[in-house]
This record gives sequence, C-alpha cells and structure tokens, in this order.
Amino acid sequence: MKGKFISFEGIDGCGKTTQVKLLEEHLNKKGYDLLVLREPGGTRVGEKIREILLDRENLIFPVTEMLLYASSRAQLVEEKIIPALSKGQIVIVDRFVDSSYVYQGYARGLELNKVRIVNEIATKGIFPDITLYIDITPEEAIKRRRGKKADRLEGEDYEFHKKVREGYLELVKEFPDRFILIDGMKEVQEVHKMILHVLEKYL
Amino acid sequence: MKGKFISFEGIDGCGKTTQVKLLEEHLNKKGYDLLVLREPGGTRVGEKIREILLDRENLIFPVTEMLLYASSRAQLVEEKIIPALSKGQIVIVDRFVDSSYVYQGYARGLELNKVRIVNEIATKGIFPDITLYIDITPEEAIKRRRGKKADRLEGEDYEFHKKVREGYLELVKEFPDRFILIDGMKEVQEVHKMILHVLEKYL
Repeated sequence: MKGKFISFEGIDGCGKTTQVKLLEEHLNKKGYDLLVLREPGGTRVGEKIREILLDRENLIFPVTEMLLYASSRAQLVEEKIIPALSKGQIVIVDRFVDSSYVYQGYARGLELNKVRIVNEIATKGIFPDITLYIDITPEEAIKRRRGKKADRLEGEDYEFHKKVREGYLELVKEFPDRFILIDGMKEVQEVHKMILHVLEKYL
Repeated sequence: MKGKFISFEGIDGCGKTTQVKLLEEHLNKKGYDLLVLREPGGTRVGEKIREILLDRENLIFPVTEMLLYASSRAQLVEEKIIPALSKGQIVIVDRFVDSSYVYQGYARGLELNKVRIVNEIATKGIFPDITLYIDITPEEAIKRRRGKKADRLEGEDYEFHKKVREGYLELVKEFPDRFILIDGMKEVQEVHKMILHVLEKYL
C-alpha cells in the first residue's frame, strides 16, 4: 500500500501520547496527510471495547483480554488503517500488535505463539513499517504517574511494568529493522527531536 | 472433568431458548445440579460484549465479530464453565463454538480454519459432550419472528439464514458423535420430549 504506517509503543507513562501529539502537529505543519489513531479504540466499536478493558470493576482473564484487544485491532485495521494506507496517508497509532505481545504475552504469561496467531488473523498481516519504542524505567513510570488516578491497566504493580519493559526490549532485539528505541528518560522536546530525526529518512 | 457439558444450537427462532428453559425446569425437578448460561454473555464482561454485538447501530466487520464472540466465550469458559464442570455440575449453554463456525464461517465467509484456531485458544479446548441442534427451515424462522423487533443479528435476510442452516447440517455430518439433530418444526412439547429422550442415556 502507498501510505506509511508508524506505531508508538512503551510502558504507560513513557510519554507516547504527548509524543504522538507533537509529531502530529509537526507533520500537519509540513503538509502531510495524516491519520492518528489510538488503541484500544479508534472506531465506534473499538471505543466500546476500550471501555470494557479499562473499567476497573471488570474481572477479565488474560485470554479474554488478548482477544478483546485483537477485536478492537481487527476493526481498526479494516475500518481505518487499510483505507488510509490505500489512499497514501501516514497512519500513526498509539499502540498496536506489540502491546499485545508485551502485555498479554510477556507480562501476563500467555503463550506468545497464541498471541501471534490471533493477531495475524486480526490484522490480516498488516504490520507497522516502523515502530517507535519509547523506553523508560518502571521506576520512572511510577514516579511520573504518582497522584494520577490509574485505570485497570495502569494500576498494575512495579513487577508487571518491569516485565512489560523486558518484553519490549526483547522485541527490539528480535525485530531490529522495524523497531527504533528512543530514550524516553530525556526531556519532552529532546525526545521529540530524536523522533523527527529518526523519521526523516522514512517520510 | 466430572460434570456434563451440553450445548444448544440452531437458527434464531428455532426454539432454543424455550427448550433450554423447559430442560432446566425438568432437570431441576429431578434434583440435578445445573448451570445454565447463554452466549454471547453469561458473565459481567460477556454481557457487555453482547451489547456491542447486538446493537444495530454498530458496523462490525466479520473478523471483529468472530473475535468478540471468542472473547465472550473465553471469559465464560474460565469464569463459569471450568469451575462448574470441576464441581460435577451439568452445564447447559444456549450457543457455543458451533455458532461461530456457522455464523462467521459458513454464513459470513470467514475461513473456517481461522475460526477454529481462535476458538481453540478461547475455549482452551473445552468442547460440549453433546450438542443439541434444533433444526428448522429458514422460512419457518422468518415466519415465527414476524412482528418481533429484530436485533442486529436477527435482522439478516433469508439467504443468510439458509447458509446458517447449511452450515449446521455440515457440522452434524462432520461430528456425528457429538451432534444430535432435533426436528424443531414439531410442537414445543414434542421437541422437549425428544430432547429428554436423547439426554436419558447421557445423564
């Protein structure tokens, strides 16, 4: 397809959402044709699935959780991502398949192979051209969040965030052509500059 | 596991829900320890997924639909079915995996193999001991429903119901040990008696 597909990944609190916004503003100014999406969500059905996933009152088993993320992703791919890429747009997603590998696979202990098979079906094999992984320590994530009210997933403990980070670092090693590690411990504007620098050759 | 697992299947309008209720009353009177569940739903999270699936305002792609059913099913299996079977209860479900084969596979044209793989993961390989398929013609289904307000799935057209029935008849052929075909064109009480007759040897 003609467009470019960029995903952002990282532990909650790493600054993904801020960086997506800064990148969006920058590319808009430059006149690029953009579509910015978030996961889970990004579609009518996906936003309803998001509500289920983030509601702290819900008891959700790991397999259910993985399948719900895959449902939201399947809808996003078919309703938004494929049409946008076909038109030549730049698609930026705040989280994609790698989040499932890391959160449901590495962190919650689901077999990675199950996560992979389900997500290949959900995405119809559509993967990001480039994935910007914003790396921070679990300690930093907890520090940044202090005082904010956490949703069901953000409320996980230190050990969980540690596993999530380890999972991401595994993926960076496994897919060096797709993944770019960005040091998220730096200042917001500095991180933004690094991202622009990296994307220069891609866009 | 010690318990027995019975599923009911059939086109909407075939009388499943009525028959489940009659069977439930009968088995309760006989003193059996029962758990009756419905799909999608049957758990807090599953009922929320059900709302998404049945809302006519939602545009839902076939892969998303299949994955949402699988999510609800995964939750049902882990939260309700496995614990009940372990305690030796009789578990009766109004729809289970076969509905996905038939509705998303045969009727909507998703590859059966994809439906199979996802559902094996969702159910952890837990399948009904016996599946009561209540067979009616698509014409009869439409006749019985006339005047009732249809939800998103019931509103499908005649051709769709025809494919659904063909799918069920394929499954009956493919899994003769598990499937029992019940003639749903008969009177309610007669269908109920046939079901009791069939179940006599299983319970």
